[in-house]
Amino acid sequence: MGAYDRLSLNTATTKRLTLAEAVAAAQRAGLPAVGVWRDRVHEVGLAAAARLLAGSGLVVSSLCRGGFLTATEPAARQSALADNRAAILEAATLGTTELVMVVGGLPEGGKDLVAARGRAADAVAELVPHAQEHGVRLVLEPLHPMYAADRAVLSTLEQALDLAAPHSTSAVGVVVDTFHVWWDPKLSEQVARAGREGRLAAYQVCDFNLPIAADALLSRGMMGDGVVDFATITGWVAAAGYAGPVEVEIFNAEIWAADADEVLATLKQRWSELVLPFLAPAG
Amino acid sequence: MGAYDRLSLNTATTKRLTLAEAVAAAQRAGLPAVGVWRDRVHEVGLAAAARLLAGSGLVVSSLCRGGFLTATEPAARQSALADNRAAILEAATLGTTELVMVVGGLPEGGKDLVAARGRAADAVAELVPHAQEHGVRLVLEPLHPMYAADRAVLSTLEQALDLAAPHSTSAVGVVVDTFHVWWDPKLSEQVARAGREGRLAAYQVCDFNLPIAADALLSRGMMGDGVVDFATITGWVAAAGYAGPVEVEIFNAEIWAADADEVLATLKQRWSELVLPFLAPAG
Repeated sequence: MGAYDRLSLNTATTKRLTLAEAVAAAQRAGLPAVGVWRDRVHEVGLAAAARLLAGSGLVVSSLCRGGFLTATEPAARQSALADNRAAILEAATLGTTELVMVVGGLPEGGKDLVAARGRAADAVAELVPHAQEHGVRLVLEPLHPMYAADRAVLSTLEQALDLAAPHSTSAVGVVVDTFHVWWDPKLSEQVARAGREGRLAAYQVCDFNLPIAADALLSRGMMGDGVVDFATITGWVAAAGYAGPVEVEIFNAEIWAADADEVLATLKQRWSELVLPFLAPAG
Repeated sequence: MGAYDRLSLNTATTKRLTLAEAVAAAQRAGLPAVGVWRDRVHEVGLAAAARLLAGSGLVVSSLCRGGFLTATEPAARQSALADNRAAILEAATLGTTELVMVVGGLPEGGKDLVAARGRAADAVAELVPHAQEHGVRLVLEPLHPMYAADRAVLSTLEQALDLAAPHSTSAVGVVVDTFHVWWDPKLSEQVARAGREGRLAAYQVCDFNLPIAADALLSRGMMGDGVVDFATITGWVAAAGYAGPVEVEIFNAEIWAADADEVLATLKQRWSELVLPFLAPAG
Protein backbone atom coordinates (compact mmCIF):
# COMPACT_ATOMS: atom_id res chain seq x y z
CA MET A 1 0.00 0.00 0.00
CA GLY A 2 1.35 3.40 -0.96
CA ALA A 3 1.69 6.28 1.46
CA TYR A 4 -0.85 8.41 -0.39
CA ASP A 5 -3.44 5.75 -1.27
CA ARG A 6 -6.02 7.34 1.01
CA LEU A 7 -5.05 11.00 0.63
CA SER A 8 -7.55 13.21 -1.18
CA LEU A 9 -7.09 16.84 -2.16
CA ASN A 10 -10.15 18.90 -1.38
CA THR A 11 -10.25 21.62 -4.01
CA ALA A 12 -10.85 24.28 -1.33
CA THR A 13 -7.18 23.84 -0.35
CA THR A 14 -6.11 25.05 -3.78
CA LYS A 15 -8.81 27.65 -4.03
CA ARG A 16 -7.32 29.67 -6.89
CA LEU A 17 -7.09 26.66 -9.20
CA THR A 18 -9.79 25.71 -11.66
CA LEU A 19 -11.10 22.16 -11.44
CA ALA A 20 -8.80 21.07 -14.28
CA GLU A 21 -5.81 22.70 -12.61
CA ALA A 22 -6.61 21.13 -9.23
CA VAL A 23 -6.99 17.71 -10.85
CA ALA A 24 -3.66 18.16 -12.61
CA ALA A 25 -1.99 19.26 -9.36
CA ALA A 26 -3.34 16.20 -7.54
CA GLN A 27 -2.09 13.98 -10.35
CA ARG A 28 1.40 15.56 -10.33
CA ALA A 29 1.50 14.99 -6.57
CA GLY A 30 0.55 11.34 -6.99
CA LEU A 31 -2.71 11.63 -5.10
CA PRO A 32 -5.50 9.20 -5.98
CA ALA A 33 -8.52 11.36 -5.13
CA VAL A 34 -10.08 14.79 -5.00
CA GLY A 35 -12.94 16.29 -3.01
CA VAL A 36 -14.71 18.77 -5.24
CA TRP A 37 -16.45 22.08 -4.51
CA ARG A 38 -19.50 22.95 -6.51
CA ASP A 39 -18.37 26.43 -7.57
CA ARG A 40 -15.49 24.93 -9.56
CA VAL A 41 -17.89 22.41 -11.10
CA HIS A 42 -20.41 25.07 -12.10
CA GLU A 43 -17.64 27.14 -13.65
CA VAL A 44 -17.04 24.51 -16.34
CA GLY A 45 -20.47 22.94 -16.33
CA LEU A 46 -21.53 19.62 -14.86
CA ALA A 47 -21.08 17.47 -17.97
CA ALA A 48 -17.59 18.80 -18.67
CA ALA A 49 -16.61 18.41 -15.01
CA ALA A 50 -17.87 14.83 -15.00
CA ARG A 51 -15.87 14.04 -18.15
CA LEU A 52 -12.76 15.68 -16.73
CA LEU A 53 -12.98 13.75 -13.47
CA ALA A 54 -13.84 10.42 -15.13
CA GLY A 55 -10.96 10.87 -17.56
CA SER A 56 -8.53 11.75 -14.78
CA GLY A 57 -8.69 8.36 -13.13
CA LEU A 58 -9.03 10.11 -9.77
CA VAL A 59 -11.60 9.05 -7.23
CA VAL A 60 -14.07 11.79 -6.29
CA SER A 61 -14.18 11.47 -2.52
CA SER A 62 -16.99 13.98 -1.97
CA LEU A 63 -18.90 16.90 -3.38
CA CYS A 64 -18.91 20.04 -1.19
CA ARG A 65 -21.45 21.21 -0.39
CA GLY A 66 -25.17 21.11 0.05
CA GLY A 67 -27.09 22.51 2.98
CA PHE A 68 -28.18 25.97 4.12
CA LEU A 69 -31.54 24.55 5.06
CA THR A 70 -32.65 26.81 7.91
CA ALA A 71 -34.61 29.51 6.07
CA THR A 72 -37.98 30.45 7.54
CA GLU A 73 -39.51 32.01 4.42
CA PRO A 74 -41.29 29.41 2.28
CA ALA A 75 -39.77 30.70 -0.97
CA ALA A 76 -36.25 30.68 0.46
CA ARG A 77 -36.82 27.23 1.88
CA GLN A 78 -38.06 25.87 -1.47
CA SER A 79 -35.13 27.46 -3.23
CA ALA A 80 -32.70 25.81 -0.80
CA LEU A 81 -34.35 22.43 -1.25
CA ALA A 82 -34.18 22.80 -5.04
CA ASP A 83 -30.50 23.68 -4.83
CA ASN A 84 -29.87 20.61 -2.69
CA ARG A 85 -31.72 18.38 -5.13
CA ALA A 86 -29.46 19.80 -7.83
CA ALA A 87 -26.40 19.06 -5.65
CA ILE A 88 -27.54 15.46 -5.19
CA LEU A 89 -27.78 15.06 -8.94
CA GLU A 90 -24.37 16.67 -9.38
CA ALA A 91 -22.80 14.28 -6.88
CA ALA A 92 -24.25 11.28 -8.69
CA THR A 93 -23.13 12.65 -12.06
CA LEU A 94 -19.60 13.29 -10.81
CA GLY A 95 -19.35 9.75 -9.49
CA THR A 96 -19.33 10.32 -5.75
CA THR A 97 -21.78 8.93 -3.21
CA GLU A 98 -20.94 11.60 -0.59
CA LEU A 99 -22.55 15.03 -0.55
CA VAL A 100 -21.21 17.09 2.37
CA MET A 101 -23.93 19.17 4.04
CA VAL A 102 -23.35 22.43 5.93
CA VAL A 103 -26.83 22.90 7.32
CA GLY A 104 -26.88 26.71 7.66
CA GLY A 105 -27.07 29.16 10.54
CA LEU A 106 -29.70 31.37 12.07
CA PRO A 107 -31.85 33.29 9.62
CA GLU A 108 -31.02 37.02 9.36
CA GLY A 109 -31.83 38.63 12.70
CA GLY A 110 -33.16 35.38 14.14
CA LYS A 111 -32.02 33.98 17.47
CA ASP A 112 -34.15 30.88 17.91
CA LEU A 113 -31.49 28.22 17.61
CA VAL A 114 -33.78 25.41 18.74
CA ALA A 115 -36.26 26.19 15.95
CA ALA A 116 -33.49 26.54 13.34
CA ARG A 117 -32.21 23.11 14.32
CA GLY A 118 -35.68 21.72 13.89
CA ARG A 119 -35.98 23.23 10.41
CA ALA A 120 -32.62 21.72 9.40
CA ALA A 121 -33.78 18.28 10.55
CA ASP A 122 -37.07 18.64 8.67
CA ALA A 123 -35.31 19.69 5.47
CA VAL A 124 -32.84 16.80 5.66
CA ALA A 125 -35.79 14.41 6.03
CA GLU A 126 -37.40 15.97 2.99
CA LEU A 127 -34.25 15.46 0.91
CA VAL A 128 -33.67 11.84 1.89
CA PRO A 129 -35.91 10.21 -0.77
CA HIS A 130 -34.22 12.22 -3.52
CA ALA A 131 -30.78 11.27 -2.19
CA GLN A 132 -31.71 7.60 -2.05
CA GLU A 133 -33.10 7.68 -5.55
CA HIS A 134 -29.72 8.86 -6.84
CA GLY A 135 -27.56 6.68 -4.60
CA VAL A 136 -26.12 9.70 -2.81
CA ARG A 137 -25.58 10.05 0.92
CA LEU A 138 -26.23 13.34 2.71
CA VAL A 139 -23.12 13.72 4.84
CA LEU A 140 -23.93 15.96 7.80
CA GLU A 141 -21.04 18.15 8.89
CA PRO A 142 -21.01 19.44 12.45
CA LEU A 143 -19.24 22.81 12.37
CA HIS A 144 -17.23 24.40 15.15
CA PRO A 145 -19.56 26.18 17.61
CA MET A 146 -18.04 29.54 16.65
CA TYR A 147 -20.05 29.18 13.42
CA ALA A 148 -23.33 28.13 15.06
CA ALA A 149 -25.01 31.45 14.27
CA ASP A 150 -23.76 32.15 10.77
CA ARG A 151 -22.86 28.84 9.10
CA ALA A 152 -24.26 25.74 10.75
CA VAL A 153 -26.58 25.15 13.67
CA LEU A 154 -25.19 21.61 13.68
CA SER A 155 -22.41 21.88 16.25
CA THR A 156 -21.39 18.44 17.52
CA LEU A 157 -20.97 14.94 16.18
CA GLU A 158 -23.48 13.72 18.74
CA GLN A 159 -26.08 16.16 17.42
CA ALA A 160 -25.33 15.08 13.83
CA LEU A 161 -25.75 11.41 14.71
CA ASP A 162 -29.00 12.15 16.52
CA LEU A 163 -30.23 14.04 13.44
CA ALA A 164 -29.18 11.14 11.19
CA ALA A 165 -30.72 8.43 13.38
CA PRO A 166 -34.22 8.28 11.82
CA HIS A 167 -32.78 7.74 8.34
CA SER A 168 -31.18 4.88 6.43
CA THR A 169 -27.39 4.72 6.73
CA SER A 170 -27.18 4.75 2.94
CA ALA A 171 -29.01 8.10 2.86
CA VAL A 172 -27.56 10.06 5.80
CA GLY A 173 -24.02 9.92 7.18
CA VAL A 174 -21.66 12.21 9.06
CA VAL A 175 -18.22 13.66 8.41
CA VAL A 176 -15.54 14.12 11.03
CA ASP A 177 -13.59 17.27 10.21
CA THR A 178 -10.79 17.72 12.72
CA PHE A 179 -11.01 21.52 12.59
CA HIS A 180 -14.61 21.50 13.71
CA VAL A 181 -14.63 18.75 16.33
CA TRP A 182 -11.14 18.46 17.87
CA TRP A 183 -12.27 20.22 21.08
CA ASP A 184 -15.28 17.99 21.79
CA PRO A 185 -15.06 16.13 25.12
CA LYS A 186 -17.34 13.45 23.68
CA LEU A 187 -15.43 13.03 20.42
CA SER A 188 -13.95 9.62 21.17
CA GLU A 189 -17.32 8.24 22.24
CA GLN A 190 -19.20 9.75 19.29
CA VAL A 191 -16.67 8.70 16.65
CA ALA A 192 -16.99 5.15 17.94
CA ARG A 193 -20.77 5.52 17.81
CA ALA A 194 -20.59 6.82 14.23
CA GLY A 195 -18.65 3.71 13.26
CA ARG A 196 -20.97 1.37 15.13
CA GLU A 197 -24.04 2.95 13.58
CA GLY A 198 -22.61 2.85 10.05
CA ARG A 199 -22.63 6.64 9.64
CA LEU A 200 -18.94 7.48 9.29
CA ALA A 201 -18.97 8.68 5.68
CA ALA A 202 -15.92 10.93 5.49
CA TYR A 203 -12.86 12.11 7.39
CA GLN A 204 -11.43 15.56 6.67
CA VAL A 205 -8.21 16.82 8.20
CA CYS A 206 -6.76 20.25 8.74
CA ASP A 207 -5.49 22.10 11.77
CA PHE A 208 -7.12 24.69 14.03
CA ASN A 209 -4.84 27.72 13.97
CA LEU A 210 -4.48 30.25 16.77
CA PRO A 211 -4.98 33.13 16.96
CA ILE A 212 -8.30 32.86 15.16
CA ALA A 213 -8.00 34.57 11.75
CA ALA A 214 -9.64 37.95 11.12
CA ASP A 215 -12.04 36.06 8.88
CA ALA A 216 -12.80 33.18 11.24
CA LEU A 217 -13.54 30.86 8.31
CA LEU A 218 -9.86 31.08 7.34
CA SER A 219 -8.48 29.80 10.63
CA ARG A 220 -8.02 26.35 9.13
CA GLY A 221 -4.37 25.42 8.92
CA MET A 222 -1.95 22.89 7.49
CA MET A 223 -1.71 19.85 9.73
CA GLY A 224 0.92 20.53 12.37
CA ASP A 225 0.55 24.32 12.32
CA GLY A 226 -2.18 24.48 14.99
CA VAL A 227 -3.48 22.74 18.08
CA VAL A 228 -5.14 19.57 16.76
CA ASP A 229 -3.98 16.18 18.07
CA PHE A 230 -4.08 14.27 14.76
CA ALA A 231 -2.58 11.11 16.21
CA THR A 232 -5.35 10.67 18.74
CA ILE A 233 -8.29 11.66 16.56
CA THR A 234 -7.04 9.69 13.56
CA GLY A 235 -6.63 6.68 15.83
CA TRP A 236 -10.26 7.00 16.96
CA VAL A 237 -11.47 7.27 13.35
CA ALA A 238 -9.44 4.22 12.35
CA ALA A 239 -10.66 2.23 15.34
CA ALA A 240 -14.22 3.10 14.35
CA GLY A 241 -13.59 1.24 11.11
CA TYR A 242 -13.29 4.13 8.68
CA ALA A 243 -11.34 2.90 5.66
CA GLY A 244 -12.15 5.52 3.04
CA PRO A 245 -10.32 8.50 1.59
CA VAL A 246 -9.13 11.28 3.87
CA GLU A 247 -9.57 14.76 2.48
CA VAL A 248 -7.31 17.67 3.30
CA GLU A 249 -9.49 20.78 3.20
CA ILE A 250 -7.80 24.01 4.25
CA PHE A 251 -9.25 27.51 4.01
CA ASN A 252 -6.28 29.73 4.68
CA ALA A 253 -5.23 32.95 2.97
CA GLU A 254 -1.50 32.18 3.11
CA ILE A 255 -1.96 28.70 1.71
CA TRP A 256 -4.20 30.04 -1.04
CA ALA A 257 -1.53 32.58 -1.97
CA ALA A 258 1.25 29.98 -2.12
CA ASP A 259 2.28 27.86 -5.09
CA ALA A 260 -0.03 24.84 -5.31
CA ASP A 261 2.73 22.31 -5.94
CA GLU A 262 4.60 23.55 -2.87
CA VAL A 263 1.42 23.37 -0.81
CA LEU A 264 0.92 19.79 -1.98
CA ALA A 265 4.51 18.87 -1.12
CA THR A 266 4.08 20.20 2.41
CA LEU A 267 0.68 18.55 2.66
CA LYS A 268 2.13 15.14 1.73
CA GLN A 269 4.94 15.52 4.25
CA ARG A 270 2.59 16.48 7.08
CA TRP A 271 0.22 13.71 6.09
CA SER A 272 3.03 11.16 6.24
CA GLU A 273 4.19 12.38 9.65
CA LEU A 274 0.95 13.27 11.42
CA VAL A 275 -1.95 11.30 9.93
CA LEU A 276 -0.84 8.23 7.99
CA PRO A 277 0.90 6.44 10.92
CA PHE A 278 -2.37 6.46 12.87
CA LEU A 279 -4.74 5.39 10.11
CA ALA A 280 -4.22 1.66 10.44
CA PRO A 281 -6.66 0.20 12.94
CA ALA A 282 -4.94 -1.36 15.92
CA GLY A 283 -4.12 -4.92 14.97
CA MET B 1 -39.33 43.05 44.03
CA GLY B 2 -37.25 45.65 42.22
CA ALA B 3 -36.14 45.29 38.62
CA TYR B 4 -32.46 45.17 39.55
CA ASP B 5 -32.63 43.00 42.67
CA ARG B 6 -30.76 40.18 40.97
CA LEU B 7 -28.48 42.20 38.70
CA SER B 8 -24.78 42.09 39.53
CA LEU B 9 -22.03 44.11 37.87
CA ASN B 10 -19.01 41.98 37.14
CA THR B 11 -16.02 44.29 37.38
CA ALA B 12 -14.64 43.00 34.07
CA THR B 13 -17.43 45.00 32.38
CA THR B 14 -15.95 48.23 33.72
CA LYS B 15 -12.39 47.13 33.26
CA ARG B 16 -10.76 50.56 33.57
CA LEU B 17 -12.32 51.25 36.97
CA THR B 18 -10.61 50.47 40.25
CA LEU B 19 -12.55 48.34 42.70
CA ALA B 20 -13.70 51.42 44.59
CA GLU B 21 -14.80 53.10 41.36
CA ALA B 22 -16.66 50.00 40.18
CA VAL B 23 -18.41 49.69 43.54
CA ALA B 24 -19.41 53.35 43.37
CA ALA B 25 -20.68 52.94 39.80
CA ALA B 26 -22.78 49.93 40.82
CA GLN B 27 -24.18 51.92 43.74
CA ARG B 28 -25.02 54.94 41.56
CA ALA B 29 -26.80 52.58 39.18
CA GLY B 30 -28.81 51.06 42.02
CA LEU B 31 -27.38 47.58 41.61
CA PRO B 32 -27.25 45.34 44.68
CA ALA B 33 -24.22 43.22 43.82
CA VAL B 34 -20.83 43.00 42.17
CA GLY B 35 -18.76 40.13 40.84
CA VAL B 36 -15.13 40.90 41.54
CA TRP B 37 -11.96 40.16 39.62
CA ARG B 38 -8.85 39.36 41.58
CA ASP B 39 -6.57 41.87 39.84
CA ARG B 40 -8.64 44.75 41.19
CA VAL B 41 -8.58 43.17 44.65
CA HIS B 42 -4.81 42.69 44.62
CA GLU B 43 -4.34 46.27 43.51
CA VAL B 44 -5.69 47.60 46.82
CA GLY B 45 -4.87 44.60 48.97
CA LEU B 46 -7.21 41.93 50.28
CA ALA B 47 -7.99 43.51 53.64
CA ALA B 48 -8.79 46.92 52.15
CA ALA B 49 -10.91 45.31 49.41
CA ALA B 50 -12.83 43.32 52.02
CA ARG B 51 -13.47 46.48 54.07
CA LEU B 52 -14.53 48.40 50.98
CA LEU B 53 -16.97 45.69 49.90
CA ALA B 54 -18.36 45.08 53.39
CA GLY B 55 -18.85 48.81 53.87
CA SER B 56 -20.57 49.19 50.50
CA GLY B 57 -23.55 47.07 51.43
CA LEU B 58 -23.23 45.30 48.06
CA VAL B 59 -23.42 41.54 47.78
CA VAL B 60 -20.29 39.95 46.31
CA SER B 61 -21.78 37.50 43.84
CA SER B 62 -18.48 35.83 42.90
CA LEU B 63 -14.73 36.12 42.80
CA CYS B 64 -13.17 35.72 39.34
CA ARG B 65 -11.15 33.72 38.93
CA GLY B 66 -9.21 30.65 39.95
CA GLY B 67 -8.06 27.88 37.68
CA PHE B 68 -5.27 27.39 35.12
CA LEU B 69 -4.72 23.93 36.47
CA THR B 70 -3.39 22.05 33.45
CA ALA B 71 0.39 22.49 33.82
CA THR B 72 2.53 19.39 33.35
CA GLU B 73 5.65 20.60 35.17
CA PRO B 74 5.50 19.82 38.90
CA ALA B 75 6.69 23.29 39.92
CA ALA B 76 4.15 25.03 37.69
CA ARG B 77 1.43 22.74 38.96
CA GLN B 78 2.31 23.44 42.60
CA SER B 79 2.40 27.14 41.89
CA ALA B 80 -1.07 26.98 40.31
CA LEU B 81 -2.46 25.03 43.26
CA ALA B 82 -0.98 27.56 45.69
CA ASP B 83 -2.53 30.42 43.73
CA ASN B 84 -5.91 28.69 43.85
CA ARG B 85 -5.64 28.14 47.58
CA ALA B 86 -4.96 31.87 47.87
CA ALA B 87 -8.02 32.60 45.70
CA ILE B 88 -10.19 30.41 47.95
CA LEU B 89 -9.04 32.38 50.96
CA GLU B 90 -9.67 35.65 49.12
CA ALA B 91 -13.21 34.60 48.24
CA ALA B 92 -13.95 33.74 51.85
CA THR B 93 -12.42 37.00 53.05
CA LEU B 94 -14.43 39.05 50.54
CA GLY B 95 -17.62 37.38 51.66
CA THR B 96 -18.53 35.30 48.63
CA THR B 97 -19.01 31.55 48.49
CA GLU B 98 -18.44 31.38 44.72
CA LEU B 99 -14.99 31.16 43.16
CA VAL B 100 -15.25 31.00 39.37
CA MET B 101 -12.73 28.59 37.85
CA VAL B 102 -11.31 28.82 34.31
CA VAL B 103 -9.44 25.54 34.22
CA GLY B 104 -6.71 26.42 31.71
CA GLY B 105 -5.78 25.27 28.22
CA LEU B 106 -3.16 23.04 26.69
CA PRO B 107 0.35 23.49 28.03
CA GLU B 108 2.71 25.37 25.66
CA GLY B 109 3.22 23.23 22.57
CA GLY B 110 1.12 20.40 23.97
CA LYS B 111 -1.74 18.81 22.04
CA ASP B 112 -2.96 16.06 24.34
CA LEU B 113 -6.37 17.43 25.25
CA VAL B 114 -7.51 14.23 26.94
CA ALA B 115 -4.55 14.32 29.32
CA ALA B 116 -4.98 18.05 30.02
CA ARG B 117 -8.60 17.39 30.95
CA GLY B 118 -7.47 14.67 33.30
CA ARG B 119 -4.99 17.01 34.98
CA ALA B 120 -7.68 19.66 35.45
CA ALA B 121 -9.95 17.09 37.12
CA ASP B 122 -7.13 15.91 39.39
CA ALA B 123 -6.27 19.46 40.44
CA VAL B 124 -9.89 20.31 41.20
CA ALA B 125 -10.09 17.22 43.40
CA GLU B 126 -6.93 18.32 45.19
CA LEU B 127 -8.43 21.76 45.90
CA VAL B 128 -11.78 20.52 47.19
CA PRO B 129 -10.76 20.00 50.85
CA HIS B 130 -9.29 23.51 51.02
CA ALA B 131 -12.44 24.98 49.46
CA GLN B 132 -14.66 23.11 51.91
CA GLU B 133 -12.57 24.22 54.85
CA HIS B 134 -13.22 27.85 53.87
CA GLY B 135 -16.84 27.45 52.84
CA VAL B 136 -16.08 28.34 49.23
CA ARG B 137 -17.43 26.58 46.17
CA LEU B 138 -15.24 25.98 43.12
CA VAL B 139 -17.50 27.10 40.29
CA LEU B 140 -16.40 25.37 37.09
CA GLU B 141 -16.83 27.48 33.99
CA PRO B 142 -17.12 25.74 30.64
CA LEU B 143 -15.63 28.08 28.05
CA HIS B 144 -16.57 28.36 24.39
CA PRO B 145 -14.77 25.67 22.35
CA MET B 146 -12.83 28.36 20.48
CA TYR B 147 -10.81 28.71 23.72
CA ALA B 148 -10.26 24.99 24.30
CA ALA B 149 -6.57 25.20 23.44
CA ASP B 150 -5.55 28.45 25.10
CA ARG B 151 -7.95 29.15 27.99
CA ALA B 152 -10.01 26.22 29.18
CA VAL B 153 -10.10 22.56 28.24
CA LEU B 154 -13.53 22.53 29.89
CA SER B 155 -15.82 23.12 26.93
CA THR B 156 -19.39 22.09 27.74
CA LEU B 157 -21.76 22.18 30.68
CA GLU B 158 -22.11 18.41 30.45
CA GLN B 159 -18.34 18.01 30.82
CA ALA B 160 -18.33 20.43 33.79
CA LEU B 161 -21.10 18.49 35.52
CA ASP B 162 -19.30 15.21 34.91
CA LEU B 163 -16.14 16.72 36.39
CA ALA B 164 -18.10 18.01 39.40
CA ALA B 165 -19.96 14.75 40.00
CA PRO B 166 -17.52 13.07 42.42
CA HIS B 167 -17.54 16.09 44.75
CA SER B 168 -19.92 17.58 47.28
CA THR B 169 -22.34 20.16 45.85
CA SER B 170 -21.13 22.61 48.48
CA ALA B 171 -17.57 22.28 47.14
CA VAL B 172 -17.97 22.16 43.36
CA GLY B 173 -20.59 23.89 41.22
CA VAL B 174 -20.91 25.18 37.67
CA VAL B 175 -21.61 28.54 36.07
CA VAL B 176 -23.73 29.07 32.98
CA ASP B 177 -22.23 31.94 30.99
CA THR B 178 -24.38 32.63 27.94
CA PHE B 179 -21.40 33.67 25.81
CA HIS B 180 -19.74 30.32 26.27
CA VAL B 181 -22.64 27.90 26.07
CA TRP B 182 -25.41 29.45 23.94
CA TRP B 183 -24.59 27.20 20.96
CA ASP B 184 -24.74 23.89 22.84
CA PRO B 185 -27.39 21.49 21.49
CA LYS B 186 -27.54 19.87 24.95
CA LEU B 187 -27.83 23.14 26.88
CA SER B 188 -31.47 22.78 27.90
CA GLU B 189 -30.90 19.24 29.13
CA GLN B 190 -27.69 20.07 30.97
CA VAL B 191 -29.01 23.24 32.63
CA ALA B 192 -31.90 21.17 33.96
CA ARG B 193 -29.41 18.56 35.15
CA ALA B 194 -27.31 21.24 36.87
CA GLY B 195 -30.39 22.35 38.78
CA ARG B 196 -31.42 18.82 39.64
CA GLU B 197 -27.94 17.95 40.86
CA GLY B 198 -27.61 21.12 42.95
CA ARG B 199 -24.66 22.47 40.96
CA LEU B 200 -26.06 25.66 39.43
CA ALA B 201 -23.93 28.17 41.30
CA ALA B 202 -23.96 31.20 39.02
CA TYR B 203 -25.49 32.67 35.88
CA GLN B 204 -23.52 35.18 33.81
CA VAL B 205 -24.98 37.01 30.85
CA CYS B 206 -23.46 38.75 27.88
CA ASP B 207 -23.88 38.40 24.15
CA PHE B 208 -21.81 36.58 21.52
CA ASN B 209 -20.85 39.21 18.94
CA LEU B 210 -20.16 38.53 15.29
CA PRO B 211 -17.82 38.88 13.58
CA ILE B 212 -15.47 37.44 16.18
CA ALA B 213 -13.21 40.23 17.47
CA ALA B 214 -9.54 40.39 16.45
CA ASP B 215 -8.77 39.42 20.04
CA ALA B 216 -11.28 36.58 20.35
CA LEU B 217 -11.55 37.12 24.10
CA LEU B 218 -13.18 40.48 23.40
CA SER B 219 -16.08 39.14 21.33
CA ARG B 220 -18.35 39.38 24.34
CA GLY B 221 -21.09 41.94 23.82
CA MET B 222 -23.85 43.85 25.53
CA MET B 223 -27.03 41.76 25.67
CA GLY B 224 -28.95 42.33 22.47
CA ASP B 225 -25.93 43.19 20.31
CA GLY B 226 -25.15 39.60 19.26
CA VAL B 227 -26.74 36.25 18.54
CA VAL B 228 -27.68 34.89 21.98
CA ASP B 229 -31.30 33.97 22.69
CA PHE B 230 -31.52 35.33 26.25
CA ALA B 231 -35.23 34.63 26.61
CA THR B 232 -34.83 30.91 26.01
CA ILE B 233 -31.64 30.36 27.99
CA THR B 234 -32.77 32.52 30.91
CA GLY B 235 -36.02 30.56 30.98
CA TRP B 236 -34.08 27.30 31.22
CA VAL B 237 -31.94 28.66 34.04
CA ALA B 238 -35.02 29.87 35.92
CA ALA B 239 -36.82 26.56 35.39
CA ALA B 240 -33.77 24.80 36.81
CA GLY B 241 -34.39 26.68 40.06
CA TYR B 242 -31.59 29.21 39.94
CA ALA B 243 -32.58 32.12 42.17
CA GLY B 244 -29.26 33.88 42.75
CA PRO B 245 -27.63 36.99 41.35
CA VAL B 246 -27.04 37.31 37.62
CA GLU B 247 -23.74 38.85 36.66
CA VAL B 248 -23.17 40.87 33.54
CA GLU B 249 -19.60 40.24 32.47
CA ILE B 250 -18.53 41.81 29.19
CA PHE B 251 -15.02 41.91 27.75
CA ASN B 252 -15.33 44.36 24.88
CA ALA B 253 -12.95 47.09 23.80
CA GLU B 254 -15.73 49.55 22.88
CA ILE B 255 -17.55 49.04 26.15
CA TRP B 256 -14.31 49.43 28.08
CA ALA B 257 -13.65 52.71 26.28
CA ALA B 258 -17.12 54.09 27.01
CA ASP B 259 -18.27 56.04 30.07
CA ALA B 260 -19.09 53.57 32.84
CA ASP B 261 -22.33 55.25 33.86
CA GLU B 262 -23.56 55.16 30.28
CA VAL B 263 -22.57 51.50 30.01
CA LEU B 264 -24.53 50.77 33.18
CA ALA B 265 -27.57 52.65 31.88
CA THR B 266 -27.56 50.57 28.69
CA LEU B 267 -26.92 47.44 30.69
CA LYS B 268 -29.94 48.06 32.92
CA GLN B 269 -32.16 48.73 29.93
CA ARG B 270 -31.08 45.55 28.12
CA TRP B 271 -31.42 43.60 31.33
CA SER B 272 -34.98 44.83 31.78
CA GLU B 273 -35.91 43.97 28.20
CA LEU B 274 -34.01 40.78 27.51
CA VAL B 275 -33.27 38.97 30.77
CA LEU B 276 -35.52 40.04 33.64
CA PRO B 277 -38.85 39.03 32.03
CA PHE B 278 -37.62 35.45 31.75
CA LEU B 279 -36.08 35.05 35.20
CA ALA B 280 -39.26 34.13 37.04
CA PRO B 281 -39.78 30.39 36.99
CA ALA B 282 -42.94 29.37 35.18
CA GLY B 283 -45.71 29.49 37.71
